[in-house]
Amino acid sequence: MAGNSFGTLFRLSTFGESHGEAIGGILEGCPPGIELDLEAIQLEMDRRKPGQSAIVTQRKESDQVRFLSGIFEGKTTGTPIGFMIANSNQKSGDYDHIKDSYRPSHADYVYDQKYGFRDYRGGGRSSARETACRVVGGAIAKQFLKELKINAFVSQVGSITLNKEYQELDLGKTDSNPVRCPDPMVAAAMEEHIREVRKEGDTIGGVITCVIRNVPVGLGEPVFDKLHAQLGKAMLSINAVKGFEYGSGFEGVRMKGSEHNDAFNPDGTTKTNHSGGVQGGISNGMDIYFRVAFKPVATLIQAYETIDKEGNTVQAKGKGRHDPCVVPRAVPIVEAMAALVLADFVLLNRSLKA
Amino acid sequence: MAGNSFGTLFRLSTFGESHGEAIGGILEGCPPGIELDLEAIQLEMDRRKPGQSAIVTQRKESDQVRFLSGIFEGKTTGTPIGFMIANSNQKSGDYDHIKDSYRPSHADYVYDQKYGFRDYRGGGRSSARETACRVVGGAIAKQFLKELKINAFVSQVGSITLNKEYQELDLGKTDSNPVRCPDPMVAAAMEEHIREVRKEGDTIGGVITCVIRNVPVGLGEPVFDKLHAQLGKAMLSINAVKGFEYGSGFEGVRMKGSEHNDAFNPDGTTKTNHSGGVQGGISNGMDIYFRVAFKPVATLIQAYETIDKEGNTVQAKGKGRHDPCVVPRAVPIVEAMAALVLADFVLLNRSLKA
Amino acid sequence: MAGNSFGTLFRLSTFGESHGEAIGGILEGCPPGIELDLEAIQLEMDRRKPGQSAIVTQRKESDQVRFLSGIFEGKTTGTPIGFMIANSNQKSGDYDHIKDSYRPSHADYVYDQKYGFRDYRGGGRSSARETACRVVGGAIAKQFLKELKINAFVSQVGSITLNKEYQELDLGKTDSNPVRCPDPMVAAAMEEHIREVRKEGDTIGGVITCVIRNVPVGLGEPVFDKLHAQLGKAMLSINAVKGFEYGSGFEGVRMKGSEHNDAFNPDGTTKTNHSGGVQGGISNGMDIYFRVAFKPVATLIQAYETIDKEGNTVQAKGKGRHDPCVVPRAVPIVEAMAALVLADFVLLNRSLKA
Amino acid sequence: MAGNSFGTLFRLSTFGESHGEAIGGILEGCPPGIELDLEAIQLEMDRRKPGQSAIVTQRKESDQVRFLSGIFEGKTTGTPIGFMIANSNQKSGDYDHIKDSYRPSHADYVYDQKYGFRDYRGGGRSSARETACRVVGGAIAKQFLKELKINAFVSQVGSITLNKEYQELDLGKTDSNPVRCPDPMVAAAMEEHIREVRKEGDTIGGVITCVIRNVPVGLGEPVFDKLHAQLGKAMLSINAVKGFEYGSGFEGVRMKGSEHNDAFNPDGTTKTNHSGGVQGGISNGMDIYFRVAFKPVATLIQAYETIDKEGNTVQAKGKGRHDPCVVPRAVPIVEAMAALVLADFVLLNRSLKA
Repeated sequence: MAGNSFGTLFRLSTFGESHGEAIGGILEGCPPGIELDLEAIQLEMDRRKPGQSAIVTQRKESDQVRFLSGIFEGKTTGTPIGFMIANSNQKSGDYDHIKDSYRPSHADYVYDQKYGFRDYRGGGRSSARETACRVVGGAIAKQFLKELKINAFVSQVGSITLNKEYQELDLGKTDSNPVRCPDPMVAAAMEEHIREVRKEGDTIGGVITCVIRNVPVGLGEPVFDKLHAQLGKAMLSINAVKGFEYGSGFEGVRMKGSEHNDAFNPDGTTKTNHSGGVQGGISNGMDIYFRVAFKPVATLIQAYETIDKEGNTVQAKGKGRHDPCVVPRAVPIVEAMAALVLADFVLLNRSLKA
Repeated sequence: MAGNSFGTLFRLSTFGESHGEAIGGILEGCPPGIELDLEAIQLEMDRRKPGQSAIVTQRKESDQVRFLSGIFEGKTTGTPIGFMIANSNQKSGDYDHIKDSYRPSHADYVYDQKYGFRDYRGGGRSSARETACRVVGGAIAKQFLKELKINAFVSQVGSITLNKEYQELDLGKTDSNPVRCPDPMVAAAMEEHIREVRKEGDTIGGVITCVIRNVPVGLGEPVFDKLHAQLGKAMLSINAVKGFEYGSGFEGVRMKGSEHNDAFNPDGTTKTNHSGGVQGGISNGMDIYFRVAFKPVATLIQAYETIDKEGNTVQAKGKGRHDPCVVPRAVPIVEAMAALVLADFVLLNRSLKA
Repeated sequence: MAGNSFGTLFRLSTFGESHGEAIGGILEGCPPGIELDLEAIQLEMDRRKPGQSAIVTQRKESDQVRFLSGIFEGKTTGTPIGFMIANSNQKSGDYDHIKDSYRPSHADYVYDQKYGFRDYRGGGRSSARETACRVVGGAIAKQFLKELKINAFVSQVGSITLNKEYQELDLGKTDSNPVRCPDPMVAAAMEEHIREVRKEGDTIGGVITCVIRNVPVGLGEPVFDKLHAQLGKAMLSINAVKGFEYGSGFEGVRMKGSEHNDAFNPDGTTKTNHSGGVQGGISNGMDIYFRVAFKPVATLIQAYETIDKEGNTVQAKGKGRHDPCVVPRAVPIVEAMAALVLADFVLLNRSLKA
Repeated sequence: MAGNSFGTLFRLSTFGESHGEAIGGILEGCPPGIELDLEAIQLEMDRRKPGQSAIVTQRKESDQVRFLSGIFEGKTTGTPIGFMIANSNQKSGDYDHIKDSYRPSHADYVYDQKYGFRDYRGGGRSSARETACRVVGGAIAKQFLKELKINAFVSQVGSITLNKEYQELDLGKTDSNPVRCPDPMVAAAMEEHIREVRKEGDTIGGVITCVIRNVPVGLGEPVFDKLHAQLGKAMLSINAVKGFEYGSGFEGVRMKGSEHNDAFNPDGTTKTNHSGGVQGGISNGMDIYFRVAFKPVATLIQAYETIDKEGNTVQAKGKGRHDPCVVPRAVPIVEAMAALVLADFVLLNRSLKA
């Protein structure tokens, strides 16, 4: 079945609804003998979890991963790594008001149309809670890919834009503020903006930039599974994402070939990097960088008008504990998905020896 | 193996290098009993083929599809549709100059690094010639999806932008000019710009917008195979693509949730369509629309400096017959890939009855 | 990654080692809106579980399935059904003696060679405990396929053979004795034989026959995924299986075409059924029947000589609680795998409408 | 879509009907840089082709493979190898008599039921002609696996059985007679039997044994994709196959564990090999051996009674040029499928390094 798995050899499958008993997954294909730092995995979980700062949702979810298989004496065994995360602190009552009505720009309506009915509690399977499982898989992928440096950060919130090249930034500072923007001044402005928006019961969009360094040459498959196509799919599969561009992206459209082409240095590196580290769908060893656009969260703490299952107009009001801006918590998710893509291509490349 | 197939049930696999004997493919999963209009398939091929106008490459490739299986008495049989397109008029001599050197921003270098050697003639497997096979598969998908209207068009060339909503355009006019921009005035400016760029031996990027109407509610799979994620992967897998956005896209980032949310009408349609016809990864029945960014073609008819296999700096000069701007010929490719994505989701949805 | 998933649309993925924290799985593709009888699922589990009679292993495993997702208000939602079975009563101490030596005809040696090390407790991932997850998936598949009757039974233990056509048997009696042979006289002889073998600390092989009735015409895919090929793979993937034959099987080799061909009745049924309900890889609506050969269990409660990791000859002795004959407990596993195969083909067939 | 592809990394997809324009396929995943001996591939094709001896069908099919891609300067490039085999000498007229009636024990009836109509000429997609494509893929797999020795031979025709262990045979003699039985005396009896059966317009079944030597330890994936499960599926997918057993097979059922277990030698080899070279689904380095049962060919050159599409009883008579016994020509097909299975597992194993 389509839809719940990602990857060919290094492959994550997930299950679980927001307010069911648990979410979880199976990570297949992680090579045997890798010593896993379980604490590092939990730290990635903590970067994504609710309640971590004043500008994210104040839901309390401990998000403790429990590994059920595939690890023995601290090392991966090569067999599938099963894991689960219990859904504690489920205030299902928060969702009774949406049982029979459809929240605008949510998946409520389309799930009912597609499946005939839905687990309406907290968005069910469409909830971004599912991304916790991706962070588990991605954290293991990161440990497998330990030479690669994968760094995502917030580069835009609403109209507040970080106008610097990533090379000018100290990406080590990304987590030093709750917004996860590595420039403290811009971060402060973004944080202020998010606070204001929240006060209005409103939400705002954002952009995450991701940079991947120390990438070996040759990752990615020709034609349909180009490295950037798979990265694009990975990012677009994250809740609320509306766009993806890599290297020169949409701006590159305005350039002429003579400006855009990346001339070679004698060692195979290039003098410029409009290609964003990918040529013909395959990594060329230069930094990979890409941008991911997130829409404003659809759940507002405001009154709104909508329809119920019978098409009657109803008055509703968002309640519960929601994020005013999704990007600070989405930074580890972007990194996780990037790691899963790269780990898979690393394994696929191993089949190429004659 | 990853990379040469697209789709789960409605599935296209392709083979072939630019200057080998032939390119071709296998289309699996097309339901039986569909009367195929072979002429309509060839017309799509002609929209993509070189030499069709003064602003595209003047290579002569007849691009005649030859069907080898899966069609009997004019109808699909449900068995795989095998097809091939002979590579005639291969001026391999045009490529001797790149045998030992790497063209900037092409796949030459990464293929050599990944595979140890490469079929250097015309880019080999990395050539956009492979997309002819996608147009065959997509043309059949269109016939299967006959109720859906899939219309792509050029909305930007360099900095010349079509500043109209798609609803204001007569998409029936797209093919009335060589640029495939449905606004004749803007098309003329774009055409003029492409001619100038070509005179300089240079190239320029562009954007294609695609609109899909009459989409049933419910297409797309939750989580990893969201409709827009699969569309994004499909588009990013087309040669020269650098970015993808749907609905409000990168601009939507600047909006607040209260502006961005699409309020429902009683019939389940929405008053606005920032969602771009997709909510939670599943079609909601509104028009799907998205934008695809193409970089300027890397092959210039200019002298340039590059490196050879040994890392020596060498002087080179592009020759052959190349496109100054890829978007006019890419319009049918965008439509083809969209059709393949949708056909697959239509088939996947059929498994949902209890 | 290969190996942990079965099926294309109706798809089971499993995880877990014999003595890890838990085993479990994800069942994808089960259509939404199916009312699940959870008790019926547990009953299938109980047919497989250890300790159920005097002739099977006396290990105590409660094998309670815990569903974590995909079910809401008693019905499937169409989203993945995650489940786990805790590994309680793990006498890991029982396995210290095999930590450094290789049990003959077990997977110990090959796992160490393939993965570099292994979770040696109870066979780890190679343990037949994994089949409990298959029974969960198969029990749900049975509920989806409620019109089909899938009945497996023991038809041979050692040299004691049930020499009757399945049509002469009352398959409702299969579970009336601990051997699961529907002929009480033969069952008694088999049971007696198993008791004797066990007294010697030895083990014995057996055959399971499976009959499937009310099969719709048209299940199975041409060429590589023929119905019987997929059934064969499913059965051969069960621990200890050494052979598979359907319809006339190995005996059919001796027949002439004029004897073997199944002549048609006017309604499309056939007068004989040497085909075993499958022609050209596709079900023809007649009963499907096949036989599965199981080797004698490799674990003996006897002293034996073997080697350790360094290749030294060592003396060992089987201990723990093991099955003297695997077939009584394998009956529900055969049915489960058959159900999974059929459910998948039922879903695949839905894509065939023009 | 299910059914037309085999393998995960080393992957063959086929297309084509018996009497369409051509059959062919795509082989993906063959590593780059392998020098292909095209003559050796054609020799394998010739072992399978009709008309090669007096005891097989006298149809004339040249079965010349034409490679279309994936090979450059005599070596594989790592890109998909596309190939086709033209369908010449198609006496479609031979099949007009089956257009509206169903041949007993053929796929005619089930194809019509499944797809609504069928390409009736020569069995269409259900024809064993498709196996020519498998021989192409398998011949390339053999060249990739050059250290492994894969030898199939005929071990039974009707009731004439080769009662020798494979170790007692000179497998180099397999192709020295038209039956492909390596024992000349038994081969002569088999040949005589086939001639008699043919004189009656009848057909007869047979068994092929396959032996694989020099297998590295560790091939095969745990759980669902066990080495023998994949081999079993591969063999059962060949036209007319009714059963598969490996190692001790169905006979092993009668043995006790103490007889059946394969005791280790200090070097990890085993003193006996009831396991057939596979333990827990993974190769242990001992010879792999298995047996494949083929039913008698369904097409007789005799009058018979059958039904037409409307269920009317009709008189028919087989004509055309058919095999009286399929096993002599199936020997290279069995080897090809075995090679495809092994090549895939060799590639999958490469992903296991930490």
